[in-house]
Amino acid sequence: KHGRVDLAFGAGGQAMAQLIAELFARAFANDYLARGDDAAVLPALTAGERLVLATDAHVVSPLFFPGGDIGSLSVHGTINDLAVMGARPLYLAASFILEEGFALAELARIVDSMATAARAAGVAVVTGDTKVVERGKGDGIFITTTGVGALPAGRDPGGARAQPGDAILVSGTLGDHGMAIMAQREALAFESEIRSDSAALHDLVETLYAATDASAIHVLRDPTRGGLASTLNEIAAQSGVGMLVDEASIPVSPAVQSACELLGLDPLNLANEGKLVLICAPHATASLLAAMRAHPLGGEAACIGEVCIDPQGFVQLRTCLGGRRMLDWLAGEPLPRIC
Amino acid sequence: KHGRVDLAFGAGGQAMAQLIAELFARAFANDYLARGDDAAVLPALTAGERLVLATDAHVVSPLFFPGGDIGSLSVHGTINDLAVMGARPLYLAASFILEEGFALAELARIVDSMATAARAAGVAVVTGDTKVVERGKGDGIFITTTGVGALPAGRDPGGARAQPGDAILVSGTLGDHGMAIMAQREALAFESEIRSDSAALHDLVETLYAATDASAIHVLRDPTRGGLASTLNEIAAQSGVGMLVDEASIPVSPAVQSACELLGLDPLNLANEGKLVLICAPHATASLLAAMRAHPLGGEAACIGEVCIDPQGFVQLRTCLGGRRMLDWLAGEPLPRIC
Ligand SMILES: Nc1ncnc2c1ncn2[C@@H]1O[C@H](COP(=O)(O)OP(=O)(O)OP(=O)(O)O)[C@@H](O)[C@H]1O
Ligand SMILES: Nc1ncnc2c1ncn2[C@@H]1O[C@H](COP(=O)(O)OP(=O)(O)OP(=O)(O)O)[C@@H](O)[C@H]1O
Ligand SMILES: [Mg+2]
Ligand SMILES: [Mg+2]
Ligand SMILES: [Mg+2]
Ligand SMILES: [Mg+2]
Ligand SMILES: [Mg+2]
Ligand SMILES: [Mg+2]
Repeated sequence: KHGRVDLAFGAGGQAMAQLIAELFARAFANDYLARGDDAAVLPALTAGERLVLATDAHVVSPLFFPGGDIGSLSVHGTINDLAVMGARPLYLAASFILEEGFALAELARIVDSMATAARAAGVAVVTGDTKVVERGKGDGIFITTTGVGALPAGRDPGGARAQPGDAILVSGTLGDHGMAIMAQREALAFESEIRSDSAALHDLVETLYAATDASAIHVLRDPTRGGLASTLNEIAAQSGVGMLVDEASIPVSPAVQSACELLGLDPLNLANEGKLVLICAPHATASLLAAMRAHPLGGEAACIGEVCIDPQGFVQLRTCLGGRRMLDWLAGEPLPRIC
Repeated sequence: KHGRVDLAFGAGGQAMAQLIAELFARAFANDYLARGDDAAVLPALTAGERLVLATDAHVVSPLFFPGGDIGSLSVHGTINDLAVMGARPLYLAASFILEEGFALAELARIVDSMATAARAAGVAVVTGDTKVVERGKGDGIFITTTGVGALPAGRDPGGARAQPGDAILVSGTLGDHGMAIMAQREALAFESEIRSDSAALHDLVETLYAATDASAIHVLRDPTRGGLASTLNEIAAQSGVGMLVDEASIPVSPAVQSACELLGLDPLNLANEGKLVLICAPHATASLLAAMRAHPLGGEAACIGEVCIDPQGFVQLRTCLGGRRMLDWLAGEPLPRIC
């Protein structure tokens, strides 16, 4: 259709019901959603499994970028927050805030992309909501996804569990998502070269748990907004430890590296949407690194440093020249609407 | 503070971490959220209980209105979608889309109101998200809440379960929320007289299940956007039945009634945020109506009609003058951003 989002699509009448039935429910097709009731009624989790809940709003601009769009991103982002707690992702809720006048063709493309990403990840969108705001009171489309997962007994990763002596691993190159967005926003020449790494990480996480004793996996986190730098500082603060990271060992693609030099950005401050930070007991490092590298999403995994004693929670970088500098939280100009 | 929302509050760095710690985590205070991890890890549900999931974005304008604000509304709205499936609400996820420049004092007021409403309902906000969009790309604040509830065995209300002969009950006066918003928006004189009915309905629902055999409760629904008219049409379509409603028996407050006449609105098209529609087996009508009336949120409950055979799913109104007219879905000018 050549239609556009109308205020009636959010007003609770027949136009809204039709949009939900013909666009959303058709794309997300599953029995829970098809009931059309106020909430989805889902089976009980497997006995002994804990419930895990994560939510993220997605306001990325532009809506479409190399490697993905707001739809696939909104599925991957929330799945990843479940996965890094060790959980198996099961269900998603999806809430849409549409701006009056937004093209229905773009909406359909985004919803199809969500449905494809959710299906590929084995997760169903079981309930949703649709609101419309007047022209100029939104920005095309915002999507909040909330995920429910099941956490098997024995798994208990958490940001407070890093211990001195632990190894710090990353599952691949850093900064790809953030730079893909920045490059497209600025219409830079290398725009098409750099693709977002947006991906669902739960299968990689399962592979890691299969490769070691669960208790050796101390922390898992997806280094999204704020990049690796903020993620390591968060974990250091939560655990009350320091970290020492080898700059030379941090994987960054040549394209992202040169784009960063051009724009005066640090790849360690850029968001990632398909990467894991893993902190593990030293005895498990080799097997976890090997398991990462053998997985399609971990080919360029690396051990980048180690956790050390430091009640102040400083993260230090051993630079390529042999010196040391503090790796601080993301500072300076914020990079808005990266996810 | 006299501060305003800054883009840095959504950028993933230290400013965001500080806002979350000092404003959100402090107000919502609970151990799950305090962990500060990527997702909340929650206990397994009681054995035999099914999981229920509901989500709603809240974009109401104005943000503050007689009887509530976007914060309390976002808690009540999602709790109610769990409650009308028969579930006990347990946890909420809350995702915020803030506009650059929004006053921190208003944000704090809204967050406090959410926290108060959640605490009163016995539900914890266990995980959240904070995004910031540039000035002019949002409208102050949008809040998406997602709720998780537990559904005890034996309860199975659903929109498809209405049967010919069933009674249709409502728990009180209709149109209060919608008219409270409209009146304030238009700065009408009776603005302060009409208060939103925003309230959490799960305790009323528990009272109803205690008053009868669970199988007698066929349908529960909260008549939000689109009002009673759309809600009855939805249920009629889902169940493949007709309905016959007595206009004279529908409770509407005198203030809402006269405001509707002034504005040319129909109270049956106006949103409610603290009312139940209940469709039950005829033998349970008297006890359920009595149970409603004995509850603080059901004092003006009424039986308004009955379900009849009609494969076309028509909802008809027996008017006060003795005639009949179709009660259609909300039509005409949509009432945007009522919730
Ligand atoms: N964008 C969407 N994608 C998938 N399902 C949706 C979407 N929007 C709504 N739904 C589904 O459509 C049905 C009706 O949704 P609706 O939001 O009208 O219900 P509600 O939350 O009870 O009402 P309100 O939002 O007015 O409080 C629900 O089953 C809901 O899960
Ligand atoms: N508005 C909020 N209210 C309550 N808790 C919040 C809020 N915003 C964030 N949080 C909590 O703060 C912590 C960090 O949230 P954050 O959104 O940075 O994590 P993330 O989802 O892993 O990252 P990203 O959003 O970049 O993907 C989480 O524990 C989250 O539940
Ligand atoms: Mg509802
Ligand atoms: Mg996230
Ligand atoms: Mg809804
Ligand atoms: Mg995360
Ligand atoms: Mg609702
Ligand atoms: Mg988040």
